[in-house]
Amino acid sequence: MPINSAISLTKVFSHSQLLLFSEQVFLKSGFSVEDSKLCAKLLTRADIRGVDSHGVARLSGYIRLIKAGRLNPNPSFKWYSGFPTLHTLDADKSIGFLSANTAMEKCTLTAETYGCGMVAVKNSNHFGIAGQYALMAAEKGMIGMAFTNASPLVAPTHSSERMLGTNPIAVAIPSLHSKPFVLDMATTTAANGKLEILQRKELMAPSGWIQKSDGTDSLDPNELRTGGALRPLGSFPDLGSHKGYALGSLVDILSGVLSGANFGPWVPPFVSFLPLSADSVGEGIGHFFIAFRPDGFIPQEEFLTRMEKWMEAFRSSQKISNEEVLVPGDPEWELEKVRGENGIPLLHAVIHDLNQLASELSLPPFAVL
Amino acid sequence: MPINSAISLTKVFSHSQLLLFSEQVFLKSGFSVEDSKLCAKLLTRADIRGVDSHGVARLSGYIRLIKAGRLNPNPSFKWYSGFPTLHTLDADKSIGFLSANTAMEKCTLTAETYGCGMVAVKNSNHFGIAGQYALMAAEKGMIGMAFTNASPLVAPTHSSERMLGTNPIAVAIPSLHSKPFVLDMATTTAANGKLEILQRKELMAPSGWIQKSDGTDSLDPNELRTGGALRPLGSFPDLGSHKGYALGSLVDILSGVLSGANFGPWVPPFVSFLPLSADSVGEGIGHFFIAFRPDGFIPQEEFLTRMEKWMEAFRSSQKISNEEVLVPGDPEWELEKVRGENGIPLLHAVIHDLNQLASELSLPPFAVL
Repeated sequence: MPINSAISLTKVFSHSQLLLFSEQVFLKSGFSVEDSKLCAKLLTRADIRGVDSHGVARLSGYIRLIKAGRLNPNPSFKWYSGFPTLHTLDADKSIGFLSANTAMEKCTLTAETYGCGMVAVKNSNHFGIAGQYALMAAEKGMIGMAFTNASPLVAPTHSSERMLGTNPIAVAIPSLHSKPFVLDMATTTAANGKLEILQRKELMAPSGWIQKSDGTDSLDPNELRTGGALRPLGSFPDLGSHKGYALGSLVDILSGVLSGANFGPWVPPFVSFLPLSADSVGEGIGHFFIAFRPDGFIPQEEFLTRMEKWMEAFRSSQKISNEEVLVPGDPEWELEKVRGENGIPLLHAVIHDLNQLASELSLPPFAVL
Repeated sequence: MPINSAISLTKVFSHSQLLLFSEQVFLKSGFSVEDSKLCAKLLTRADIRGVDSHGVARLSGYIRLIKAGRLNPNPSFKWYSGFPTLHTLDADKSIGFLSANTAMEKCTLTAETYGCGMVAVKNSNHFGIAGQYALMAAEKGMIGMAFTNASPLVAPTHSSERMLGTNPIAVAIPSLHSKPFVLDMATTTAANGKLEILQRKELMAPSGWIQKSDGTDSLDPNELRTGGALRPLGSFPDLGSHKGYALGSLVDILSGVLSGANFGPWVPPFVSFLPLSADSVGEGIGHFFIAFRPDGFIPQEEFLTRMEKWMEAFRSSQKISNEEVLVPGDPEWELEKVRGENGIPLLHAVIHDLNQLASELSLPPFAVL
């Protein structure tokens, strides 16, 4: 059997299987019962929504950060606030799930009283998929936004140096009947997870995703191993890559510069085996969250009705081919439904990794291969 | 002399010449003395910052909207507020310069007390370049954001229908010594102004900017005259055009759905000779503004110092060629300096248009050609 098909083999699991196993892993790694449940829920939200690179495939990575002393399973959160609507959370090396969840709860609580709330988080770690925190606001009828900086893998326009992470922007907006509008995007042409898929399938990437260490175009999804970089959304200067670069920069400034976390090339890598930058410009990685109430501008029912009309208009706009015209978030809602019914396929390599993690923590194996 | 070089001919004017003429035009068209001065300043800010499509080249377009009954030179602003930090402005068919300026002033005033302020504007018209309103906040040491929807020219991913405007996002962030970071971008691969430049020079566009009325790729900058559309940032599905589409949608929802203005395909066209949509989903076009204070998160001096370090790091990152690695906003600051010293070149076609406008308003000609 050729290697590429072997490593593309999958086995299907229910969401509750992933939840239960992740919860046990967190518990065994020193998290409280309550925090383990929450982390498992927020981690596996990626698996059920189809962002396979950010779910249980990353579980062992988080646990390794504990061993490296970079992630604290029992953080003490400290708050700083200069104004009623603005707060900074020092997350004390927390896993991003807990700090992000706490930060967005604070945003929505603040918005209940003042109309809007913003929280900057420093001294944190990766938080999984950004969209789910934006959705916490949408579930309360508010508009939510979530941003985070991340390990530097992206080169600015005209640069060959990795200066930014894939720095996602997420925005969730509620509607009357439909599932919320969810924008949840890396500010690069392709997120790193898309390269991993190509690597497994031994396929080349389209021109415009990746550049070599000298800045020239590359089609090789392994290019980042030899100093290459991801390109900002827009890919090339004449297709507007300076706009993707500017958006990634904005996310870095809100998440890192404003919070007191590291920013730009100083953001610590997710993988524990890479050394931290010798100098540092802040603490951990940073996030930024906003929640605000539509009924501060227009009666809520009217807003939701207008939003529904917006979605209908866009979904029914003239198609070019058989491909549907979608509202941002539609593909993930569809996957959440399908995977809720049919289960979540995991790669054998991921199952193997989870079994190894179980063994290290003296837990029963995740699954027989 | 061939036509293309004739229509590319320019003559140079000082900023004060453009200011004075524009002010007279506004005054003669029914604006108050104070409003005429402000409109002239905000209109010509585009000329001095190098966004030639949004400056005096558009002056006659605004005046034509008055004659068409779509723009009110003496609007009465009405406010709605559901919460201390959130306000909606009914701009009473105002020119966008006045409503946007008032809205961002309200945002910064609100932010002084509460830390942040947001204003949605409905029943407005085009407001020139978005960046200048974001900059109003940065000049007060705050972070400013400005959004507006606009005439539908952009097709969603997988659609052949014009559903969105070029819907810009602008963000300005102050720094310690440097001019502010300014992101000011259309959410399309190329703004409409770039097509106008190609039309004048009789050049083709790069693949990825424009699509034909059937959704296939086009290189013809005149394609929009025969039902074509601009493409969202990302250009093609495999280069992430769904992200540009999602960003343009977000701008439309904040500016139009939330404010009570028109949205999507219902946004009224800027040119007065095109008919308004038979049905309407709101009033005029819409904008959205945010201002918030960095010192709500981190001491102001520390923020500005960190921002300066961010800029230094990015400007000095490894170059690929002789092209400098820039911070968003650098090119416009440079142009503002150059044009402040050397003057602003205007096309003969624009000078001719201004002379005609002067004649219609019984004003002395703008300039001899």
